[in-house]
Amino acid sequence: MLKYLEIAKKIEEKIQIENLPQGAKLPSFEELISTYQVSKSTITKALATLESKGSIFQVRGSGIFVRRKKRKGYINLHMQQGFTQDTEGYKLSSKLIWLKIITPTDEIASNLNCTKEDEVYAVKRIMYIDGKILCLEESFYKKSIIPYLNNEIVQDSIFYYIETALGIKASFSDKYLHIQPLNEDDAPYLDLPSNSPALHIDEVYFLTTGEPFNFSKIIYHYTHSQFFLQSN
Amino acid sequence: MLKYLEIAKKIEEKIQIENLPQGAKLPSFEELISTYQVSKSTITKALATLESKGSIFQVRGSGIFVRRKKRKGYINLHMQQGFTQDTEGYKLSSKLIWLKIITPTDEIASNLNCTKEDEVYAVKRIMYIDGKILCLEESFYKKSIIPYLNNEIVQDSIFYYIETALGIKASFSDKYLHIQPLNEDDAPYLDLPSNSPALHIDEVYFLTTGEPFNFSKIIYHYTHSQFFLQSN
Repeated sequence: MLKYLEIAKKIEEKIQIENLPQGAKLPSFEELISTYQVSKSTITKALATLESKGSIFQVRGSGIFVRRKKRKGYINLHMQQGFTQDTEGYKLSSKLIWLKIITPTDEIASNLNCTKEDEVYAVKRIMYIDGKILCLEESFYKKSIIPYLNNEIVQDSIFYYIETALGIKASFSDKYLHIQPLNEDDAPYLDLPSNSPALHIDEVYFLTTGEPFNFSKIIYHYTHSQFFLQSN
Repeated sequence: MLKYLEIAKKIEEKIQIENLPQGAKLPSFEELISTYQVSKSTITKALATLESKGSIFQVRGSGIFVRRKKRKGYINLHMQQGFTQDTEGYKLSSKLIWLKIITPTDEIASNLNCTKEDEVYAVKRIMYIDGKILCLEESFYKKSIIPYLNNEIVQDSIFYYIETALGIKASFSDKYLHIQPLNEDDAPYLDLPSNSPALHIDEVYFLTTGEPFNFSKIIYHYTHSQFFLQSN
């Protein structure tokens, strides 16, 4: 584990073990350096990580404070699509419906910023959270960027594979949410009646160059999913 | 307008006028300083603002690039609850149902971190987007922090009033989303049949001290609302 992630984990453990409430003041920047015996930049990166996770907040000239999630059982909306990491205690698993190479529809080509001649990996999966159906996911990967996927890889976190095996990291993402009743095709996958309420999230993930490499259409099971979002 | 916001606006206008695509390279940091004749820190703040709005992305050692929203008609999920600002071209309006001082329920007291003896302003409004019903909002403000609200103030952006009149600025927020069919009480306000799908968002806004001052329960009209979320 990278040093700054290790320090971030230690600070989180401290918050947990001491059961510090929202707004509790943490040791100062200088105290953290001396406690953990690491460089300034390691502490800076550790704090930035914790801030973006919503575990702390920093007030300039005042200090570092605990930020607590009030509600358990909610999924982080900023969580990455590949999602076996950062699940905060949940067990996620998947069932593959199919993996194939397709030529993109207009919608896929437009979101992946490619032509209809480009090849695209298409993965359809049911995702489970603690054994319950979480969502139905159709995910499309540009073959020019992700040259190889197989059934084994896509059973697990595809993003984790892409990052560790190919060294490709998502730089940023766009997510689009809307509510729409379930249609007859999708309903059986979620084990719900047609017309049940459903949250649909479309996601596009980009490389640091601004090129999109993944587009996903995800339909969430309305009684098995709830989300949180922390803003600064 | 603050200098850095002015510069941010100019850079956004440049992107719009030149119709720059996603990934187009913008002038370098140094070029921006010399073009706009402002300080380093002004450009830094302008770029940070544009990055957090999702208008640009910065790649260390490589440059500053255009980030474009692909879909129009989506509401920013990071938008503040008070929301007459940052609506990206929409016209928002509201109809007040009631404003009163109440003693908090358990749910309100827990979210506002106060006792059941504390007084709380309760505002119930229907919000409209371009004349169509957007959502039903029940919002609770701690009277110890927001000592005065009246019917005129709450017709408009309450957060704008709080910031300009009281100098109180939200430092961060927690939002919780879940899907639930509309109940009989809420459905008429949204002009929808009971049991229609609905996105429910609970929001808590905090001061820089970590103290919550506002808790809102918002129910969105499922055909009049769609959302986007940009992550870095």
